[in-house]
Amino acid sequence: MGLLQNTEPGRRMRMTKLGLETFFNPKSVAVIGASKTPGKLGYNAVQNLLNIGFKGKIYPVNPKGGEVLGIKIYPNVKDIPEPVDVGQILVPAPFVVDIMKDLAEKGVKYVVIITGGFTEAGEDGAKMEGEIMRIAKKAGMRVIGPNTTGILSAPASFSTTFLNFDNMRVGGASYIAQTGNFASITLLWILTKEHYGLCRVIGLGNKCDVDDADALEFLGEDPKTKVVGIYVEGLKNGRRFIEVAKKAAKKKPVLVLKSGRTKAGARAAASHTASLAADDAIIESALRQAGVIRVKHYIDLVNYAKAFIYQPPPKGNRMGVITPSGGLGVVMADTIESSGLSIKPFSGETLKKLEEITPPLIKVGNPFDIWPAVSAIGNVKSFDEGLKAIIADPEIDGVILGIMQNKGVDELKDIDFIIETAKKYPDKPIVSFATGEYQLVEKLRKALETNPEVRIPLYYYAEQACEVMSVMYEYTERRKAIA
Amino acid sequence: MGLLQNTEPGRRMRMTKLGLETFFNPKSVAVIGASKTPGKLGYNAVQNLLNIGFKGKIYPVNPKGGEVLGIKIYPNVKDIPEPVDVGQILVPAPFVVDIMKDLAEKGVKYVVIITGGFTEAGEDGAKMEGEIMRIAKKAGMRVIGPNTTGILSAPASFSTTFLNFDNMRVGGASYIAQTGNFASITLLWILTKEHYGLCRVIGLGNKCDVDDADALEFLGEDPKTKVVGIYVEGLKNGRRFIEVAKKAAKKKPVLVLKSGRTKAGARAAASHTASLAADDAIIESALRQAGVIRVKHYIDLVNYAKAFIYQPPPKGNRMGVITPSGGLGVVMADTIESSGLSIKPFSGETLKKLEEITPPLIKVGNPFDIWPAVSAIGNVKSFDEGLKAIIADPEIDGVILGIMQNKGVDELKDIDFIIETAKKYPDKPIVSFATGEYQLVEKLRKALETNPEVRIPLYYYAEQACEVMSVMYEYTERRKAIA
Repeated sequence: MGLLQNTEPGRRMRMTKLGLETFFNPKSVAVIGASKTPGKLGYNAVQNLLNIGFKGKIYPVNPKGGEVLGIKIYPNVKDIPEPVDVGQILVPAPFVVDIMKDLAEKGVKYVVIITGGFTEAGEDGAKMEGEIMRIAKKAGMRVIGPNTTGILSAPASFSTTFLNFDNMRVGGASYIAQTGNFASITLLWILTKEHYGLCRVIGLGNKCDVDDADALEFLGEDPKTKVVGIYVEGLKNGRRFIEVAKKAAKKKPVLVLKSGRTKAGARAAASHTASLAADDAIIESALRQAGVIRVKHYIDLVNYAKAFIYQPPPKGNRMGVITPSGGLGVVMADTIESSGLSIKPFSGETLKKLEEITPPLIKVGNPFDIWPAVSAIGNVKSFDEGLKAIIADPEIDGVILGIMQNKGVDELKDIDFIIETAKKYPDKPIVSFATGEYQLVEKLRKALETNPEVRIPLYYYAEQACEVMSVMYEYTERRKAIA
Repeated sequence: MGLLQNTEPGRRMRMTKLGLETFFNPKSVAVIGASKTPGKLGYNAVQNLLNIGFKGKIYPVNPKGGEVLGIKIYPNVKDIPEPVDVGQILVPAPFVVDIMKDLAEKGVKYVVIITGGFTEAGEDGAKMEGEIMRIAKKAGMRVIGPNTTGILSAPASFSTTFLNFDNMRVGGASYIAQTGNFASITLLWILTKEHYGLCRVIGLGNKCDVDDADALEFLGEDPKTKVVGIYVEGLKNGRRFIEVAKKAAKKKPVLVLKSGRTKAGARAAASHTASLAADDAIIESALRQAGVIRVKHYIDLVNYAKAFIYQPPPKGNRMGVITPSGGLGVVMADTIESSGLSIKPFSGETLKKLEEITPPLIKVGNPFDIWPAVSAIGNVKSFDEGLKAIIADPEIDGVILGIMQNKGVDELKDIDFIIETAKKYPDKPIVSFATGEYQLVEKLRKALETNPEVRIPLYYYAEQACEVMSVMYEYTERRKAIA
């Protein structure tokens, strides 16, 4: 305790800071700024905790008192008779400093400040943020925010976000976002469009205390986190971030979307979270050396995470491709060759097996155009034999599986045989795509992505499946380089 | 062999060939290889014509006779008592030459050969294809195929495809695909996932007669076609294609996905449709000069067409951006600046209007982060005032409109006010994206994309909306260059 009260700045101080674990596994939370009125953020926050099934104690706090959703509201956090792990602050900016003092007195060590209107809003705000930090340092508190939607910890059924969501799916995907809305948009999208589950989400906001490096350090060590996505505008302490990233990247894939690449982007970043622009080339090279994978589009964080959660990264870059259309096969060959993967002709034995299911006179190759086989012997037999032949080829490190979903002629309904084959080659990833009739594609996606034994990611277009595989291979290579 | 060399013998011959119009507006069609058995291609082909409401006469043909779906089957096309506009051939390859002779005798001038097993299958097939062409030339017939799913003409409720589809939406999007499955996958995807309608689809197959240039020439002149997408592997007559493309691009946007860029792609193309690889850089430059827009991904053909159908291209490159998250604003600023568009600070007057709806102390800029306004005064008022202010700015040529769709706090349900504003600025395109809760995003997409007055395209991620706008601007520039 004595050490934590020490205000001496510097490295030693950092070493003595509390870890972030309790933020993600609290036994109790005080919602400061709770509201009785449905639709208000302070109401939603309490409702969310109930909706997602938080097992710890919820202590709503509001000077007006009363009840929210059947839970007693305390006028002040100091009135709560039990200890409080996490304090979540929703009150307007001018009240936050006093709330921080109350929390310090109460001995609350973990605080999430949702409220905005601090450094990002100008001088007065910056002054208040400084005061908040002084209180926190003195009391040895850790602070996430301000100006964020806060955190989510799916395994603990805990969240500070004020955005409503009814469904929670626990899984291995964690991510860090500088900005709260970015974090919440992404989590909602994953929960409502994808089939994989979430682990931790950290919206850092102004990073008055907990920053990207702290968050990544926690996620790197977190055994429940299987893949980390990060959206970052500026790095306050680039060197430490790179150190932490290198450590994390040894253990799991770390995907980074770094914005502010251009002048316009840097200008927008400065006004958004007061981030300083850094030379993008320097950051790029530092991230590469750290073994981190840089992604180009926001949505890639969502799409790539899925593949890493469902499938192992390929041990090599030699791809076997099944295509439902010769044209898409050509498109995929282009994408594969220009993205660091390799697509070579199949071995004689594999070709022989593929020829056996293909009508006479039709040439087979890699990509394997499966349509002639499908039209001759049906889709189940074609895909079964085709996949078995290709994945068994010792010169193949992974399979990109393209499927056409059309009513009648070639809808693939049964996928058990794909899973059976996939199970036999646990080291060879399968990444799939399907196109055709959307509703049938969605059915197939659900079947492949929610199978209890092996989950195969499905994308909507051919090039994306190839790009995802190339990113998985990049991870294999990066890991070797930093090993 | 140089790509741009004219290898077509008898240019004058071409001039006397029949145009393609009748393929897309036939009064009657003979389905040769029709079948009584549900599920067979020859059954599906007839069923499709009935399903989509073809108004012309359908003559199923099969030596076995009988009936299919209540329609009499003729043993031979020559037995049909009335004239036949289009002959559609589904019988196995060895029978096709004889069928061609029958069609020639019957005086059928337009033939679509679905059957595969010709040049793409080897020497014997190539010989048969040569024979087919001799018959066709002698009789002055035009042939699409072989080895394709054929054509679709939505305005005529006509299709030769054997893939089942129940719904047909007529619209302005036409496209050409070298490969039949590519064409059909795309049309099914558009019909089941998008809200815009189709005009003509041409799956060229082996191009024994009708090739990319013929098809593009037709679509360029076709008043019902508003935008043309092309998937091409190889060009038999590059010079003619470029000439035709230039003419078409003056009238409407022409989007080209050219594959076979890499060695692996070229190898796949050769075995797919016997296409010769050409130097990709030469093609790229020729296409640029022709005013054509080259796209990178298969799905871009679908996504970009939508924007061109719904919105005018921007007259200049100055973008106004509304973002639901500061982070996405930075990401968009990056994308905009690196894609030929420009994002500059707003004029004083615009800033003043945006400040009026934004809580005090929060800086406003371009991108305009709308979240503070939404949380203060609600989403309808924020988006209404925000959009009005930005689109009215004389220094802005187009608006990228980002929306967060979350239950409760900021779901945008009513979009009439957006349409009212859009109507007042018919020269300034609006391209939108939304993220958050998928089902709400889809509801919003439907509302915006199916509005009877102004249709605003909605994409699922921020960078895509920016990329689409940049492609629309590229079209503006290309058109100026070839004018």
